[in-house]
Amino acid sequence: MQIEHPYLLFLGDARDALAAKTALGIVDWRREWCLGQMRLEGCKADAKLPDMNPREAAAAGVKTMVIGVVNAGGVLTESWIDIIVDAIEQGLDIASGLHMRLGDIPQIADAAKKHGAKLHDVRLSTQRFATGKGDKRPGMRLLTVGTDCSVGKKYTALALEKGMRDKGFDADFRATGQTGVFISGRGAAIDAVVADFISGAVEWISPDAAPDHWDLVEGQGSLFHPSFAGVSLGLLHGAQPDAFVVCHEPTRRTMRGVNTPLPTIGDVIHMTIACGRLTNPAIRCVGIAINTEALSEDEAKAEIARTSKTYGLPATDPVRFGVEPIVDELARHYR
Amino acid sequence: MQIEHPYLLFLGDARDALAAKTALGIVDWRREWCLGQMRLEGCKADAKLPDMNPREAAAAGVKTMVIGVVNAGGVLTESWIDIIVDAIEQGLDIASGLHMRLGDIPQIADAAKKHGAKLHDVRLSTQRFATGKGDKRPGMRLLTVGTDCSVGKKYTALALEKGMRDKGFDADFRATGQTGVFISGRGAAIDAVVADFISGAVEWISPDAAPDHWDLVEGQGSLFHPSFAGVSLGLLHGAQPDAFVVCHEPTRRTMRGVNTPLPTIGDVIHMTIACGRLTNPAIRCVGIAINTEALSEDEAKAEIARTSKTYGLPATDPVRFGVEPIVDELARHYR
Repeated sequence: MQIEHPYLLFLGDARDALAAKTALGIVDWRREWCLGQMRLEGCKADAKLPDMNPREAAAAGVKTMVIGVVNAGGVLTESWIDIIVDAIEQGLDIASGLHMRLGDIPQIADAAKKHGAKLHDVRLSTQRFATGKGDKRPGMRLLTVGTDCSVGKKYTALALEKGMRDKGFDADFRATGQTGVFISGRGAAIDAVVADFISGAVEWISPDAAPDHWDLVEGQGSLFHPSFAGVSLGLLHGAQPDAFVVCHEPTRRTMRGVNTPLPTIGDVIHMTIACGRLTNPAIRCVGIAINTEALSEDEAKAEIARTSKTYGLPATDPVRFGVEPIVDELARHYR
Repeated sequence: MQIEHPYLLFLGDARDALAAKTALGIVDWRREWCLGQMRLEGCKADAKLPDMNPREAAAAGVKTMVIGVVNAGGVLTESWIDIIVDAIEQGLDIASGLHMRLGDIPQIADAAKKHGAKLHDVRLSTQRFATGKGDKRPGMRLLTVGTDCSVGKKYTALALEKGMRDKGFDADFRATGQTGVFISGRGAAIDAVVADFISGAVEWISPDAAPDHWDLVEGQGSLFHPSFAGVSLGLLHGAQPDAFVVCHEPTRRTMRGVNTPLPTIGDVIHMTIACGRLTNPAIRCVGIAINTEALSEDEAKAEIARTSKTYGLPATDPVRFGVEPIVDELARHYR
């Protein structure tokens, strides 16, 4: 799967910004790939891009219309189908994060066939993977792991890509989730892969590379999350990281969607090393990314200082204070 | 999914016993469910059951024809399709362990619709699962885990079901793989579940039960297998076992299909407890099942004695010497 940019972001009639968070995430990290947005009557989200329809987008050079919005009830309305068919007729590919398969809708399938458009269902990939091999691959890899889901693993990996490139590292973000795939134009939503192929999919996502090249692999879930730890472990084994960063939200008490208490950062470091050395005995923790959104600036700084001291590792909030301490740690260890 | 017995086992033109190992496994453990076998010209496997065709099977009371054989090349030949359609017309359901979906073959789909037959694709379940909750469920659970794939986890769970029932335990085998599903008539092949739902599927496979009831959950893979550890971890979290048995093959040096060295039994005990306590803090190892097929009787006894002494746990080869030492350990701890 390779999604061609530039993009037209379809926001539909998103009832709020949250419903369009995939589209907004793409703009955050790949503003230069986004030539326009298309909003319908009543849309409450705004990606701050020029409004355009598929015809205008095609004329502007757009290659793919990205459906970066959650649709109410999981059903595609006729009005959306007409717009998608129009985009295909204008020569665009379609990339969707919806729970249904674009090609299951006859009008869309027919139009795509007729016009030679590619339909990318990011959540429902038909990509076939091999089972994981476990052999060490050339190139360096960093994985973001977490004390929980939704603590900033994607953001941290993307911020590290930027921060490392700024310091002269050859570094690429590697997507393992829906929004990440749109941001990198490649990857796979590994939570949607058949269980036997989790680590194999990650081996495909992060293939052989030059010895000093860094893949920054987006983490998923947590080894301590009772719903998703299997995904996290397969991802860890497939990514075979040399380095990892633990992402944490200090005010959370139970894990997302369940009653399980949050592990400590130390628990996560210990377990990640214990499991990760199976495919990379040199694995080490190189930093802690703390999501301090719920804290005041003073509280955030105190929390970061305390955490850094407790674990003897660089700590930061990548959103609030940047990733420099972690990039410096990487430079110190690996250059 | 509930597969109705008695069964007619379809062996096709199996080129050897290995090609029919699913069918032979069913006969090993559920002889009383199997009224007959159907073999084609050139079949080299024999389940030692009366040969019968679908009409004779229906007359004998068979409810389901089980396709318990690997077909060459993964493609259904016309002759197989005709036999399946015939079985449906005789009033039988069909249960298949093939890699393709029965309902994708128009003649089979049409016949099933016309005659109201159920088509069970054990490898390709359409069962929808919830994500795992992680909450402790009533009832007792034992999981078989392994130092590798294919070391006897299914056999050990089935042998424990029999051994525990013989000693008055209320115990049920819970299937997590293809052959196991045919043997129990229920369950799911969890390696074929979408990654996000591994632990949720196991919560469904082993639901709430009476406080002194034991589920004997069939393990899959190994926490140390770089291809399949994600499946094993999701299975561990979903099964939330009170007790586990480590299965091991002492002559193996690398894990199945990869170059990774085998972990020690101690590694597996330690990691299973470290991960398993997330959903059951009371988890403990209650025994070691050693597959001594490659050893002489004297060597086997010495290996078992040495292993038992090293870990201070009962050890046995369930095939060669039975599971009594492990059942005794369970009785001592939990009665």
